[in-house]
Amino acid sequence: MPNLQEKPLKTWLEIPNDTDFSIYNLPYGIFGSSDNPQKRAGIRIGDYVIDLSALAYAGLLDTLAFDIQVFEKEALNDYISLGKHIHQQLRARITELLLLGNEELKNQADKILIPTKEATMHLPVRIGDYTDFYSSEEHATNVGKMFRDPANALLPNWKHLPVGYHGRASSIVVSGTAFHRPWGQIKPADQNMPLFKPSQMLDFELEMAFIIGKSTPLGQRISTSEAEDYIFGLVLFNDWSARDIQSWEYVPLGPFLGKNFASSISPWIVPLETLEPFRIESPKQSPEVLPYLKFEGQKNYDIHLEVAIQAQNSQEKIVCQSNFRYLYWNMCQQLAHHTVNGCNVNVGDICASGTISGKEKESFGSMLELTWRGANPIPMPDGTERKFLHDYDTVIMRGYAQKDHIRVGFGEVSGQVLPATEYVGLPK
Amino acid sequence: MPNLQEKPLKTWLEIPNDTDFSIYNLPYGIFGSSDNPQKRAGIRIGDYVIDLSALAYAGLLDTLAFDIQVFEKEALNDYISLGKHIHQQLRARITELLLLGNEELKNQADKILIPTKEATMHLPVRIGDYTDFYSSEEHATNVGKMFRDPANALLPNWKHLPVGYHGRASSIVVSGTAFHRPWGQIKPADQNMPLFKPSQMLDFELEMAFIIGKSTPLGQRISTSEAEDYIFGLVLFNDWSARDIQSWEYVPLGPFLGKNFASSISPWIVPLETLEPFRIESPKQSPEVLPYLKFEGQKNYDIHLEVAIQAQNSQEKIVCQSNFRYLYWNMCQQLAHHTVNGCNVNVGDICASGTISGKEKESFGSMLELTWRGANPIPMPDGTERKFLHDYDTVIMRGYAQKDHIRVGFGEVSGQVLPATEYVGLPK
Repeated sequence: MPNLQEKPLKTWLEIPNDTDFSIYNLPYGIFGSSDNPQKRAGIRIGDYVIDLSALAYAGLLDTLAFDIQVFEKEALNDYISLGKHIHQQLRARITELLLLGNEELKNQADKILIPTKEATMHLPVRIGDYTDFYSSEEHATNVGKMFRDPANALLPNWKHLPVGYHGRASSIVVSGTAFHRPWGQIKPADQNMPLFKPSQMLDFELEMAFIIGKSTPLGQRISTSEAEDYIFGLVLFNDWSARDIQSWEYVPLGPFLGKNFASSISPWIVPLETLEPFRIESPKQSPEVLPYLKFEGQKNYDIHLEVAIQAQNSQEKIVCQSNFRYLYWNMCQQLAHHTVNGCNVNVGDICASGTISGKEKESFGSMLELTWRGANPIPMPDGTERKFLHDYDTVIMRGYAQKDHIRVGFGEVSGQVLPATEYVGLPK
Repeated sequence: MPNLQEKPLKTWLEIPNDTDFSIYNLPYGIFGSSDNPQKRAGIRIGDYVIDLSALAYAGLLDTLAFDIQVFEKEALNDYISLGKHIHQQLRARITELLLLGNEELKNQADKILIPTKEATMHLPVRIGDYTDFYSSEEHATNVGKMFRDPANALLPNWKHLPVGYHGRASSIVVSGTAFHRPWGQIKPADQNMPLFKPSQMLDFELEMAFIIGKSTPLGQRISTSEAEDYIFGLVLFNDWSARDIQSWEYVPLGPFLGKNFASSISPWIVPLETLEPFRIESPKQSPEVLPYLKFEGQKNYDIHLEVAIQAQNSQEKIVCQSNFRYLYWNMCQQLAHHTVNGCNVNVGDICASGTISGKEKESFGSMLELTWRGANPIPMPDGTERKFLHDYDTVIMRGYAQKDHIRVGFGEVSGQVLPATEYVGLPK
């Protein structure tokens, strides 16, 4: 593959200067197009989707030795399973085809490059298991202050292990999917009995997530030094949360209905390798971690993140600016911990970071923290204010890394809150 | 289908009188045989597996109108997705073929009936999501007494909702699969720092689990009265637990590495309908539950359960006798609760009951409760004793329902604890 850091790479394709989807990125997704709704694999460049099946059938991938049917599947799992060696070959070839001076693709671009406005994005992978970590010290501290003991906000285990739990895979949806405000049990502090009603404290959580790129058998551990081999790429992740449902249900076995009504991911999986230029030191960990959680080198990444809320018929308001670098526990530690007991992972599994909050108030990654449980509402452009999310609000998360001329972005993950449905189906 | 309760059904096939797998049962599994290891669907009768593909290719299912390729898949999901109407037709036809006097199958039995000793069982379904409930009042009370406050053992939410959490689907294994004792972080009460070592408090949990038989889209609720339509069948479930790992990690987000190293299920899925004769009243629920958790009719089942431990080169010792009827929250309530916020379910998902303990000490469904956290060790036939599981111990769970001449059993789920592997792969 060309050395991407040496000099700017130029493509013959017209793409916006500030695009998240530069020639350095080339993220993978599953799409259908207006003239062919069949789900299939694509790579994004600027405002185009490269139709990988079409590229292959045009003979432009003939130098690569794998079954091109992997591009015709409804999920990327089979392609991912081919391994990093194949991914690197494909990416090198696609970079070559896009470089200024190469005319192979340029001459057949009509059938192969689909304008993004003609593409519908789908879930990129068939998700086996979904794990959610809790790896931001500031988020865990903020939540601990609000819900437990302000003087001992961080629980005793937090600095010794990357706390995580299993979430619901079936209700992970792709960006753009609206969902209804969930009903649930809510117990007001001043009452003895819970009520059954729609959540009044619906929230987002700003997270990133990595997709497993290589399966392990049951019983095999992944060390921190091996972990990157098992990470295919990253997406933005909105872990929608109903705070009132969650706070009543979560003791002692953790969040359940307060989370599993929906979680949203961005459609383009940014390969881990593209983030190489953005590596950065991790926060210093103290007390010292156990040997299996130690690591060498730079394992955090400098990725700017932001969250906007858009009320119906109004403008966006950016409510949070954060950074993936703030995480106390990095992905390699998360994966080493996850598998240290022999738990197996499969291609397509998702591990989310937990809410990514920084030290400054403006960097808090949830409404819960931004409004301090509703005490400090956020003023909106239309004159209303927000303690938590209102019906018809759309939440949009964006993220990108930039260094000199190299920009690698994630696009966005958005989702709209629809009103709670009328409750029907109660037994007589 | 013949009315199974009217008179004893007799088959021409020689099967043991007390078999779990009577003509009233006909559970489904995925098997391979010594002369054809290809995974495929089977139905069990006595000590035989009916090879459903072979049955179909022999022309004995020609009256049924569905694609028989569903029997050649590596999991039952596609067959299950055909719906209860088809399942009933197939079962009626197989019952007919087995009845005394019918010679259609009898004449071709050689190729179609595989002796179980020549069959290897595999996971019966491709599991999307796995949920574990916590629905035994006695178990929740026992755990609360030991780990929290003996005076307030049951948490405030417990009688208002069927507490549940998401577990790991990837590490669910079929009966007969051995696994290594897990390593993990363990913090002794008298020390400040956690240690990293193999679990010293490895336990079983006696559970049953139901398999989802019909998918829902995101946003759709299942009421208690509809729930049975969504339940395909049941299996025995051993939710192996490392108590020392779990107790350090589980606050605030629930169990993770203390559970996800392995969970074991019995290979034969007993269809819900076969349990019809064993319906029984549920325990009275007080305080009154919210309307969405109310139900009509008998929703518990009288299923005898037992757990045996077998040390290496020794005899089994039965350590627990319990019953599925003890559950405070029934499956219909569990499923109504699970989906009340719009969470979707998919064919093949598994929902486990939580440990099934009764009131008597002998009915406690885990070592934790049976030995009261090690205070009352269990004497074993070889002269040793058990506070928790030792290396090379095999745990065997069995379950069956019996009423008059009708016996429907689950066979067993067994698993052996292998020693912890040597820990390698620590970074220098």
